[in-house]
Amino acid sequence: MTTATALSTRELCVEADRNDPLAWLRERFALPEDVIYLDGNSLGARPREAAERAAFVVSQEWGNDLIGSWNKHHWFDLPVRIGEKIGRLIGGADGECVATDTTSVNIFKAVSAALRIQQDDAPSRRVIVSERENFPTDLYIIEGLIALLDRGYSLRLIDAPEDLDAALDDDVAVVLLTEVNYRTGHLWDMGDASGRIHDAGALAVWDLCHSVGAVPVGVAAAGADFAVGCTYKYLNGGPGSPAFFWVANRHLGRVETPLTGWWGHDRPFEMADSYTPAPGGRRFLVGTQPILSLATMEVGIDMHLETDQAALRRKSLELTSLFIDLVETRVGHHPLTLITPRDEAHRGSHVSFRHPEGYAVMKALIANGVIGDYREPEVLRFGIAPMYIGYADVWDSVETLRRVLDEELWRAPEFQERDAVT
Amino acid sequence: MTTATALSTRELCVEADRNDPLAWLRERFALPEDVIYLDGNSLGARPREAAERAAFVVSQEWGNDLIGSWNKHHWFDLPVRIGEKIGRLIGGADGECVATDTTSVNIFKAVSAALRIQQDDAPSRRVIVSERENFPTDLYIIEGLIALLDRGYSLRLIDAPEDLDAALDDDVAVVLLTEVNYRTGHLWDMGDASGRIHDAGALAVWDLCHSVGAVPVGVAAAGADFAVGCTYKYLNGGPGSPAFFWVANRHLGRVETPLTGWWGHDRPFEMADSYTPAPGGRRFLVGTQPILSLATMEVGIDMHLETDQAALRRKSLELTSLFIDLVETRVGHHPLTLITPRDEAHRGSHVSFRHPEGYAVMKALIANGVIGDYREPEVLRFGIAPMYIGYADVWDSVETLRRVLDEELWRAPEFQERDAVT
Repeated sequence: MTTATALSTRELCVEADRNDPLAWLRERFALPEDVIYLDGNSLGARPREAAERAAFVVSQEWGNDLIGSWNKHHWFDLPVRIGEKIGRLIGGADGECVATDTTSVNIFKAVSAALRIQQDDAPSRRVIVSERENFPTDLYIIEGLIALLDRGYSLRLIDAPEDLDAALDDDVAVVLLTEVNYRTGHLWDMGDASGRIHDAGALAVWDLCHSVGAVPVGVAAAGADFAVGCTYKYLNGGPGSPAFFWVANRHLGRVETPLTGWWGHDRPFEMADSYTPAPGGRRFLVGTQPILSLATMEVGIDMHLETDQAALRRKSLELTSLFIDLVETRVGHHPLTLITPRDEAHRGSHVSFRHPEGYAVMKALIANGVIGDYREPEVLRFGIAPMYIGYADVWDSVETLRRVLDEELWRAPEFQERDAVT
Repeated sequence: MTTATALSTRELCVEADRNDPLAWLRERFALPEDVIYLDGNSLGARPREAAERAAFVVSQEWGNDLIGSWNKHHWFDLPVRIGEKIGRLIGGADGECVATDTTSVNIFKAVSAALRIQQDDAPSRRVIVSERENFPTDLYIIEGLIALLDRGYSLRLIDAPEDLDAALDDDVAVVLLTEVNYRTGHLWDMGDASGRIHDAGALAVWDLCHSVGAVPVGVAAAGADFAVGCTYKYLNGGPGSPAFFWVANRHLGRVETPLTGWWGHDRPFEMADSYTPAPGGRRFLVGTQPILSLATMEVGIDMHLETDQAALRRKSLELTSLFIDLVETRVGHHPLTLITPRDEAHRGSHVSFRHPEGYAVMKALIANGVIGDYREPEVLRFGIAPMYIGYADVWDSVETLRRVLDEELWRAPEFQERDAVT
């Protein structure tokens, strides 16, 4: 196995690419020639095959087969069929995972369903715990749910992962954690944390947005109760492709969804005037799904199922370690502060550094062909998607960063202006 | 103006097509040669241009411009930009309509938001009124919301439109009606009904799934409070394309969404740890939208904005009247019972007949090139999308129906078997 610290020259990085057992994957993606794309943690690159899939759905399925496609092309089954594939990727059992809606809506379903279970089992528990550094929508959704329920629930935020135990008391009903933090790249030990949450009498809901497809996930083995996540980052599903929802088998006997739409009905085409939940995870479907986005995203998920997840994780860690090493050895004379864990056991697949002029530095990097992104406050974020990023890419990115900082390219006026979307 | 009853021969229908001022629209759609597609009320036909739009989004926006497309191709603004277009189509003012999520999820938001308003204004009102014959998901969503809130709300169903007044008492908080019934094609007078609902102290939520794009809709003029609907039927947005949500201006000062996701935040990219709603209808956005489905659906909506809605309505009524006349005069010797209103003021753009062997009859019709659909119980449903259905299409469809019934083609064994999706 190549170790990152050994790659002290660009030639050694090129050599590591040549020996990379996952190098074949790079050719399966359509990426522009002149950029190094380090934002697959925000929007995954496009699998080449996705273009044909989308064209087929539009022209043949929609245009020619029309309404008949619900049967002929199994549109109605797509959320379950693709959900089961995602279920395998995240270490869940069949029948519990569906591909549907958005992460935000699925967080609403999951936290609501978990609270409903606790209302029966431990009605005095009225606190939901999460992290202040969580992706904001996770917190917003809980806020809205608390206001909607209007029965004394409250949100308790921890400031750092090590504060979890102190926050777990007899009032806690549900804990919502994100396996890999969107900003720092911190990776929770899901099994360890879920165990502590359960020991404290609470249920564990996991947001996998920044972990699925990037680190091996094992929701069932970890004892998670619910999990949600998106498919447009490391799973390469396409912009805004539908999210997923997973619920542990042991809750299926009684778990209830707050969003009781007809797609989650046991017999949707009987058009009954009252709701009967479908068995399994399918009850967490709600309305008609965006078939074009949903069918196209299956291409990326299939590629992940073909890929050795352990090898992918090894490569990811080598690349993130290499990135950290090279920044510190070659660009360390600039005020860059690593906020991603050095400990590999706690690192996802992106690396973040703070820099006082982070926004302008990132715009200058992008203008020079290295596409990462910026997150408040002052954070330069570099996503290392190991399916299509190589060792020489990491070398070249760091060299570009060095040039942007050494030559103060970020001072150009056009890099000071904020875009609408950062 | 051609009147339906005058079209007593196929030649006269062909002549009517030649004189149709909307005939140019037909060529803008890609439809197979050998079928008459009378299911545009379930899945609208594909605008030709949708193929290019989808290919551009996949190859250029996703594949080449990658994460930069959020700014360059205005992905983040799509729900508002397209929502405003839909707002114009349904007679709403700018800034109140967004294109997002599914009809089911949007019904949840709308009824929940309406109940929240009533909780302040008239807290003793705890009844939600709807129609037993409503599309089931409307009822299921209310059921789930009532269970979630768990504070004494109940659902009161009326059996027929004329029962509305009797159901409106001092307990009623919200009424959810569907402007055009999915099964019968019955069209409410939205202004009249909303007025009666308001007079009774309740708020009016309208489901426009089977009316938008088929009949002229005027939510603001009608005094509606909220409206939702889908875009994949008469708006030709593509399979499962995102739905829309409209809220009346007068509620914007205080209306709250139960699904407080980051896309509805006032400043989503500040990544604040608490929620501040965006002004206008944008607060009803939740999570990241399926961009491929969303961007592609704009093609169909643009076509509607180019089309004279009054002329479209005239043609729709001529075609549905013609369909009814021809069935009754040429196929009236079979046990077909019209369940669609004869009164044009109460008719949408589809026509339904009951037949004791409805399911097999529809399968035989489809096998013979006339694609309608079947709805429980015994209902043959024929959607007349006036953008791409002509007078001769109506003639030919009725002739095929006559042949299927006269020759008892529906008795073939293959037409007795139920498909998974009907």
